[in-house]
Amino acid sequence: MTEAALIVGAGSGLSASLARTCAAAGMRVALAARSTDKLKALEKETGARSYACDASDPADVDSLFAALKAIPDLVVYNPSYRVRGPLLGLDPAEVKKTLMVTAYGGFLVAQAALKGMAARGSGSLFFTGASASIKGYAESAPFAMGKFALRGLAQSLAREMGPKGIHVAHFVIDGGILRASDARAGGRGEDGMLSPDAIAGTYLAVHRQHRSAWSFEVDLRPWAEKF
Amino acid sequence: MTEAALIVGAGSGLSASLARTCAAAGMRVALAARSTDKLKALEKETGARSYACDASDPADVDSLFAALKAIPDLVVYNPSYRVRGPLLGLDPAEVKKTLMVTAYGGFLVAQAALKGMAARGSGSLFFTGASASIKGYAESAPFAMGKFALRGLAQSLAREMGPKGIHVAHFVIDGGILRASDARAGGRGEDGMLSPDAIAGTYLAVHRQHRSAWSFEVDLRPWAEKF
Amino acid sequence: MTEAALIVGAGSGLSASLARTCAAAGMRVALAARSTDKLKALEKETGARSYACDASDPADVDSLFAALKAIPDLVVYNPSYRVRGPLLGLDPAEVKKTLMVTAYGGFLVAQAALKGMAARGSGSLFFTGASASIKGYAESAPFAMGKFALRGLAQSLAREMGPKGIHVAHFVIDGGILRASDARAGGRGEDGMLSPDAIAGTYLAVHRQHRSAWSFEVDLRPWAEKF
Amino acid sequence: MTEAALIVGAGSGLSASLARTCAAAGMRVALAARSTDKLKALEKETGARSYACDASDPADVDSLFAALKAIPDLVVYNPSYRVRGPLLGLDPAEVKKTLMVTAYGGFLVAQAALKGMAARGSGSLFFTGASASIKGYAESAPFAMGKFALRGLAQSLAREMGPKGIHVAHFVIDGGILRASDARAGGRGEDGMLSPDAIAGTYLAVHRQHRSAWSFEVDLRPWAEKF
Repeated sequence: MTEAALIVGAGSGLSASLARTCAAAGMRVALAARSTDKLKALEKETGARSYACDASDPADVDSLFAALKAIPDLVVYNPSYRVRGPLLGLDPAEVKKTLMVTAYGGFLVAQAALKGMAARGSGSLFFTGASASIKGYAESAPFAMGKFALRGLAQSLAREMGPKGIHVAHFVIDGGILRASDARAGGRGEDGMLSPDAIAGTYLAVHRQHRSAWSFEVDLRPWAEKF
Repeated sequence: MTEAALIVGAGSGLSASLARTCAAAGMRVALAARSTDKLKALEKETGARSYACDASDPADVDSLFAALKAIPDLVVYNPSYRVRGPLLGLDPAEVKKTLMVTAYGGFLVAQAALKGMAARGSGSLFFTGASASIKGYAESAPFAMGKFALRGLAQSLAREMGPKGIHVAHFVIDGGILRASDARAGGRGEDGMLSPDAIAGTYLAVHRQHRSAWSFEVDLRPWAEKF
Repeated sequence: MTEAALIVGAGSGLSASLARTCAAAGMRVALAARSTDKLKALEKETGARSYACDASDPADVDSLFAALKAIPDLVVYNPSYRVRGPLLGLDPAEVKKTLMVTAYGGFLVAQAALKGMAARGSGSLFFTGASASIKGYAESAPFAMGKFALRGLAQSLAREMGPKGIHVAHFVIDGGILRASDARAGGRGEDGMLSPDAIAGTYLAVHRQHRSAWSFEVDLRPWAEKF
Repeated sequence: MTEAALIVGAGSGLSASLARTCAAAGMRVALAARSTDKLKALEKETGARSYACDASDPADVDSLFAALKAIPDLVVYNPSYRVRGPLLGLDPAEVKKTLMVTAYGGFLVAQAALKGMAARGSGSLFFTGASASIKGYAESAPFAMGKFALRGLAQSLAREMGPKGIHVAHFVIDGGILRASDARAGGRGEDGMLSPDAIAGTYLAVHRQHRSAWSFEVDLRPWAEKF
């Protein structure tokens, strides 16, 4: 039986690495993103199918799962949005959007994914967190709100869904993810930013854990990162 | 100089105790709630002035602070909303409302309060959390999302606003708060639920801390509570 | 009824402020330290009685409690020892001493104090932690070991002894404590180091909490401290 | 180049699975235990070499590392000792032993292992934690002290040694580990206790992580475990 993976919040970076890693592991891959225009190359490379979906819109999320050919074995929720800066200058509409994309969309995707998974009694539901998931930094209140909320969701779901056979996990990506064009990479020294392929490798290893020894929370950071 | 306190999310329970405690300590008290009808007795008892305000509505929050006679010395954000139950049965609109009231309203009130406080260089901004602020319980994902988000907001603000002279603190109320009519009180044994007056006493003590030794996070639970 | 307080690890700084604060609040004060020579002035000022005691020695701790005239209402465990520096250069004997003084002594004092308190069904047992209680810093492994261990002890005791009427609390002192002669004070700006009197004030407020709303963990840091 | 692994605290259970997993992955394996009598079968099965070593004795630990043929690429610290029961009945000597075996031995082994690893600029140093590493349970204060201390050590070492190329990680084993003869297994339901082979698989995966994306802390628990 071929496994199926759904990567929500697909684009470049980690999500592209996840798609490649899952495809290389023999899984069928589906990608969801607000716009699928940028996904053509990745579709071709991985054989993935793409779906347009605003993850913070309940109707969009319903349509996405209705369009899938099968209940996924692995769903990864990646989307985030952030607005930064001194609190007094923040636009409330942007703060609301940060909460909606970063956390509420996670709830919508979780609910849709778990319908099928719970009925089947298996599946992995993974959430991508950040340093801000466990530490609220100055001048970054909205992102802390969104990422803390996503972690609270993941914890609650792990407790509720583990005994139903669903593996819920939360990854704390504690550092910058390397991008092909990233000018910072040099300044941080060799391997000073997280390789998205390396992150994806750990997601796959956690998906493959035996259910007698599941991880809920896994942190990942470069060897020389301050934390 | 008389200090001024603003209690947002006023009703019975903890907020009423906060109003009484602040008034007894010589502070002028303002109360904000969606509806002020239920606040008449408390107004009379404490000399407080009440304001109608939906804390999750930016315009309402702006109006509230415009109507206040002075920049408060202490602002407490209490409101929360929750929907519980198995994840698969949750109404997305209710989940969104949980996030808006429990967390987004905290941002709006914080931003409005801090405008005046930062200019003055002093003030206390306190957030009321719950057990769900630090542990995501099964079948209670929305409340975990809201309360985790509020804690992320509080952490970020403490780091940003402390050096500007503003005392930001987060209280983890880890147990049930006793209500006058509470049938559970007996079953839990003597003092088995949190006295709202006792909680309010700790809020006041934290407000009065010297700035060389401020608390950010304080947990409160009954002596016999499991945790 | 006059309350009795016992301050273990007495000297200057926080312990002296605790003695003064307890005495000013009308409590009888006992002081314990490896050497009582340095305590003469404090004895005179507070009316305290001093006892020589190596808190990491079981026989010394037994003798201390046998010598006390009454079961204390409040016991504070302050002692710590630390050795710092790159791991490879640490002397194992010093690391062991760090564990013994910082953590094992806390166990010994707790056990001796709780014998009387549990029989009586009341009392407060407080532990003084540090930044290192919740974060293991580079080049400071021994102190992290000792302070983490003390926090584990305090958590276990709070869960075991709370339902017996004993208030166990742990204070995270997250910053430098001001000493009269401290040259750093200026460089950190006004109130940039913790006033020991201010810390002691919070200990007393926590001791006085109503048992329906006890704090287990309270952090304290200067307003402008990075954390 | 064949990698070398050293498993400290070897016996049955997790340590035996680690030995088998490392051997199956092509590593040379060394085992250390207070007594090597019980290790004959495991030696034969895995080709491992055994060393008698009391990990809480500095001289023993020095001898162990002097006897190894090469600086290990992976060192796992497993030993723990515990005494349980109501605090008032605990024997102080047993509490001290709990600290020495569970935490101080971890320091000794870390220091000896890191001498060679730091000079070489590579290696993994893993610590086996437990539920008690992050939560101090009632009537189990000594084990909480030991396991909290070990986690503090691991955190400090991760921050100090990461930038030197050493991967320090801490595993929170949050549940009972299945033993061949375990009567509890049935009562907990299928896969209701952690398979030691499954745990060992995750240790190996973490050892193999790319240094741009290292985990420091990984929790592991059975799918249906309450947490």
